[in-house]
Amino acid sequence: MGKSIGVGIIGAGRIGRLHADNLLNLPAFSLKMIAEMSVTEELMEWARIRGITQVTSNGELVVNDPDIEAVFICTPTLTHIEWIKKAARAGKHIFCEKPISMSKKDTAEVLHIVEESGVKLQIGFNRRMDPSFRKLKQLVEEGKVGKPHILKITSRDPMPPSEEYVRTSGGMFMDMSIHDFDMARYLMNEEVTEVYVQGASLIDPMFARHGDIDTAIITLTFASGAIGVIDNSRQAVYGYDQRVEIFGDHGAASADNCRPTTVELFTASAVLRDKPFHFFLERYNQAYMDEVAAFAEAIACNKPVVCTGFDGLHAERIAEAAKESLRTGLPVKLAALIAHSFDSGSSVNL
Amino acid sequence: MGKSIGVGIIGAGRIGRLHADNLLNLPAFSLKMIAEMSVTEELMEWARIRGITQVTSNGELVVNDPDIEAVFICTPTLTHIEWIKKAARAGKHIFCEKPISMSKKDTAEVLHIVEESGVKLQIGFNRRMDPSFRKLKQLVEEGKVGKPHILKITSRDPMPPSEEYVRTSGGMFMDMSIHDFDMARYLMNEEVTEVYVQGASLIDPMFARHGDIDTAIITLTFASGAIGVIDNSRQAVYGYDQRVEIFGDHGAASADNCRPTTVELFTASAVLRDKPFHFFLERYNQAYMDEVAAFAEAIACNKPVVCTGFDGLHAERIAEAAKESLRTGLPVKLAALIAHSFDSGSSVNL
Amino acid sequence: MGKSIGVGIIGAGRIGRLHADNLLNLPAFSLKMIAEMSVTEELMEWARIRGITQVTSNGELVVNDPDIEAVFICTPTLTHIEWIKKAARAGKHIFCEKPISMSKKDTAEVLHIVEESGVKLQIGFNRRMDPSFRKLKQLVEEGKVGKPHILKITSRDPMPPSEEYVRTSGGMFMDMSIHDFDMARYLMNEEVTEVYVQGASLIDPMFARHGDIDTAIITLTFASGAIGVIDNSRQAVYGYDQRVEIFGDHGAASADNCRPTTVELFTASAVLRDKPFHFFLERYNQAYMDEVAAFAEAIACNKPVVCTGFDGLHAERIAEAAKESLRTGLPVKLAALIAHSFDSGSSVNL
Amino acid sequence: MGKSIGVGIIGAGRIGRLHADNLLNLPAFSLKMIAEMSVTEELMEWARIRGITQVTSNGELVVNDPDIEAVFICTPTLTHIEWIKKAARAGKHIFCEKPISMSKKDTAEVLHIVEESGVKLQIGFNRRMDPSFRKLKQLVEEGKVGKPHILKITSRDPMPPSEEYVRTSGGMFMDMSIHDFDMARYLMNEEVTEVYVQGASLIDPMFARHGDIDTAIITLTFASGAIGVIDNSRQAVYGYDQRVEIFGDHGAASADNCRPTTVELFTASAVLRDKPFHFFLERYNQAYMDEVAAFAEAIACNKPVVCTGFDGLHAERIAEAAKESLRTGLPVKLAALIAHSFDSGSSVNL
Repeated sequence: MGKSIGVGIIGAGRIGRLHADNLLNLPAFSLKMIAEMSVTEELMEWARIRGITQVTSNGELVVNDPDIEAVFICTPTLTHIEWIKKAARAGKHIFCEKPISMSKKDTAEVLHIVEESGVKLQIGFNRRMDPSFRKLKQLVEEGKVGKPHILKITSRDPMPPSEEYVRTSGGMFMDMSIHDFDMARYLMNEEVTEVYVQGASLIDPMFARHGDIDTAIITLTFASGAIGVIDNSRQAVYGYDQRVEIFGDHGAASADNCRPTTVELFTASAVLRDKPFHFFLERYNQAYMDEVAAFAEAIACNKPVVCTGFDGLHAERIAEAAKESLRTGLPVKLAALIAHSFDSGSSVNL
Repeated sequence: MGKSIGVGIIGAGRIGRLHADNLLNLPAFSLKMIAEMSVTEELMEWARIRGITQVTSNGELVVNDPDIEAVFICTPTLTHIEWIKKAARAGKHIFCEKPISMSKKDTAEVLHIVEESGVKLQIGFNRRMDPSFRKLKQLVEEGKVGKPHILKITSRDPMPPSEEYVRTSGGMFMDMSIHDFDMARYLMNEEVTEVYVQGASLIDPMFARHGDIDTAIITLTFASGAIGVIDNSRQAVYGYDQRVEIFGDHGAASADNCRPTTVELFTASAVLRDKPFHFFLERYNQAYMDEVAAFAEAIACNKPVVCTGFDGLHAERIAEAAKESLRTGLPVKLAALIAHSFDSGSSVNL
Repeated sequence: MGKSIGVGIIGAGRIGRLHADNLLNLPAFSLKMIAEMSVTEELMEWARIRGITQVTSNGELVVNDPDIEAVFICTPTLTHIEWIKKAARAGKHIFCEKPISMSKKDTAEVLHIVEESGVKLQIGFNRRMDPSFRKLKQLVEEGKVGKPHILKITSRDPMPPSEEYVRTSGGMFMDMSIHDFDMARYLMNEEVTEVYVQGASLIDPMFARHGDIDTAIITLTFASGAIGVIDNSRQAVYGYDQRVEIFGDHGAASADNCRPTTVELFTASAVLRDKPFHFFLERYNQAYMDEVAAFAEAIACNKPVVCTGFDGLHAERIAEAAKESLRTGLPVKLAALIAHSFDSGSSVNL
Repeated sequence: MGKSIGVGIIGAGRIGRLHADNLLNLPAFSLKMIAEMSVTEELMEWARIRGITQVTSNGELVVNDPDIEAVFICTPTLTHIEWIKKAARAGKHIFCEKPISMSKKDTAEVLHIVEESGVKLQIGFNRRMDPSFRKLKQLVEEGKVGKPHILKITSRDPMPPSEEYVRTSGGMFMDMSIHDFDMARYLMNEEVTEVYVQGASLIDPMFARHGDIDTAIITLTFASGAIGVIDNSRQAVYGYDQRVEIFGDHGAASADNCRPTTVELFTASAVLRDKPFHFFLERYNQAYMDEVAAFAEAIACNKPVVCTGFDGLHAERIAEAAKESLRTGLPVKLAALIAHSFDSGSSVNL
């Protein structure tokens, strides 16, 4: 093993700190600096315990530090584009949280800049690294289910976000379903050509007040004619519900929820077992570690990243189509991107 | 227990014979006669073993026999209307297989005749009697899942029917999905207001040749705003896949497939268990018995039947809307029926 | 199919009536007569509903009826020997409930008489016909687990029998564990050579009062050196617990409990599913039907019965050894029976 | 959080290195030095990657380093006693792998020395920290299963150890079953009073050559009259089989195996899912981390350790009794220890 990769983080919220802990446990990376707009006592203490000596309110310092080869962008979505541009121009490899932006036009534009700069860009669709979904992908690739006909994704959060969060989230499709859109493309290994949404605000009128929904059935049509369906809810009281099933002409494969223990209790009234893990930090704990390890490997061995900027763009385009379908009540077709879908082309045409 | 109910069967195909065996095991019924257009040697032998002494090619004899109080109509769908009319006019209670007809207009018309005659009419949506689905219904009624938000039905046959069958089946929605439409209404206890279909012929081009499909994702919107989704396939190579899940604001309830045994085999290469039951005769064995027993109870105790003619009509209307959605590629709204939905009214308005 | 086999039942208690219902549903048998010491109104009504016309208090009438070819002995254990002798001498095939007697000497003696008479004798170890255990047996025979090393049987009743029953039951080993002893021989296809019991009365002091126990761990050593363990309890508050696991050098196979439905309920506090079937009538419903059908086939096709008198004798010998081990606190060796174990010999040597 | 606890490791084999990695990830500990008899290039490289600067062949340096407050003893069992004595005399807290020694007399003796020294001693029965077994313990303590009647432990390794290992392992009971003996005491919260073993060498004659066995059924009797059974095998070809079930008068609780993924594959021939985790490193990954964290907490907060030296002694006494039972073929009673069982006494009486 060669020397470790110097890395900096911009944004020290929940997800920035999660990546920090994983980076600290990975010998391949050496965490040099963390930037956060407002450096509080609490943040300084958090950093001190971990031995992170450089904490700054100035992200430019991260981007321009010569000891830093790679930057993790963990700021609010609105600032992703700006930081990607700066990092790319400074020649830093980039790990950026999803979505890249809330406009497919802006996203496409910044991807050109990244391409020209030659740096690597990995998008944080962490679920691709979940051991069960990775196994599903492998079974599909090995032909174990044959030609896929139906894809089903259940994706439900345990509880709704705060109203403050909803106000700026970009809507359920861009904030939450976008993970499922990426999962659909990842597992099916082909593009979505049409989207139809039936959505509603059934949990809390707060969503409707902000022009958003909390419950949806999303039908996806794939290029091959295969069909997918996603069901989303902002509130599954029994915990984070994350299941996937792929059905083809030779069989089917499914991934169920994960649970804290395997214990079952048998009583005179019922048989009980654990609820699924509460939320993403518990369920995708391993996936978060593995996506960072994969990023290290992509840099160290000059391999493709596990989730590209164009994967990010495609998911955003599906989210926009879903929004349009919800607005009109009609199915919405997605025009083909000339390249970067699942071929080797190098230019993008929106 | 009083005296048994004299019963006759019109149509001695697979389903007619299945009902015959269940009737013979139920002391509440006394099977008097069976009618089949062409009385073969094989049928006579089948009847002889069971001690059924009257076998005829003339269904009128069944309908007009004074010892017969109830008639099971197990003929091809095209003749259902005719036999229902004859039985109703002869004052016989009627058990009719689904669908009543392939035209909601014809169905509505014959339901008026049945209503006027005062006989009972039960439609053979056997799945309502499946122990697992019945338990789901009970949990929903007890409020265990709260207000339902999402309904998911997986319904896949193990293998496609013959081309000859497809030619006259009325299409996948009227032949196969209709069971799922009934299940949706039964579990949600409310009406479907809109249908959207994404369908394809992915298994066998034979379906496309007959203007039919073999794979579909069907989105249902309910009067309350709740959303449902059905996924259908004509070919699940691992067996009959029949699962239901209902998700609400207090929790979720699911019914999984049934398997012949609980055996698991642990080897150096994998852990294996049984596939689901092969097809409906195995999976719904108990449900077929129970629907006949429920019919006996409805007659003997003058109680409502478990599945009425109007239930049959509603399912047919959803099937027609699904067909229209597939044809146009657009969501289709269902106009409200004035009555007979889930209220006590007595007239129907199409 | 030839003509049906005339059959009579001696003993119209719970198990006698269960067999009656199964015989009535099997065209291969024709149930002619039922004998019960005290013929009550209730019994007459029970018989009338089923169309059983001959009910008698005199079992001799059953044994000597020329229309009867086979006799089901469903009387209390103490009278089994007497009825087997009478039936054998009258040349009737015999289905006898377990155990044959409470003395291996008496059992061995009557088996000689049966052998000489040439009639078939099947013992009612119904669990051999359970679909899951049958599948286990098949997997073992196909070599799927390799050479068996460990056999584990969990066998727990949902609730203790009445004190009156316990007084004459012959003790837990002869009454309840005997099924497990038979299952052990059936699955392992070899003889038990040593038994060690650790038992206790933990549920109800009533058992101790009658010199009985309610809880036990029974270790069995097999001729090949393989080891088995049975755990018994008279009271599993969550229902009838009947599981088997067989472990060998190529893998393991297990059979789990059966449940009324596959429903799962997911709530904010837990995930719940059905308890196992309540007791043997529900769990072994299919097995009871199948053992009677197997008996019909053995008679009609002159095939070996699925469970012989010598199987019954072997299980009784293990039960006696278990009793001895409990009494002494020491392991007890079983002397080999010269024949009838798993070879084709014809004489028995105690 | 105060300053971290300086710690040293004696023994850098598989388990020593596992603890090292966990210590490095725990801010509560600061790993200062590691000692190994023969310091190879490979060990130096392993240490270098982890930033462990002090590697020595002299364990005395660890024991006597003033910066070191706690010592992990990960050497072969034969040297445990010696290192415990040295560490205790140097006033270091001690984490020692199981068993403490192969002689209950030696173990008891060293425990007196530890007691007098006042340092904390934690024994590495890691399974106590497994999330599923911990949940079982909690359910038992909450009374969810009522008064325990039956305890069942399945504990099978995926493959036999090398002959070299077997030669010095102390036999299956001291090496492998000892974990199960500890689990039995931990879950039942009471002492074992009698042991009976039925054991055999069925997997490989190598075991018999060394006076050892590879397969066993071990019956345990507890002070309350409850009964336990452990089944052990040195070779489960389908993976590490670690299950526990506890059955009482109010119900039962079970912990099943853990699997790498939740994926199921449904094909035309079978339904397949993952085998259990391969071996202890995968299955007890979390437990190994948690036992080290618990040790830190015991030191930092001056709380009792989760597994004491007397827990180690008790497990060794059961292992010796099992050995005696195997030798004699008879049940063996364990004399009561005067104290340190589950009370607060401070002297031990063998």
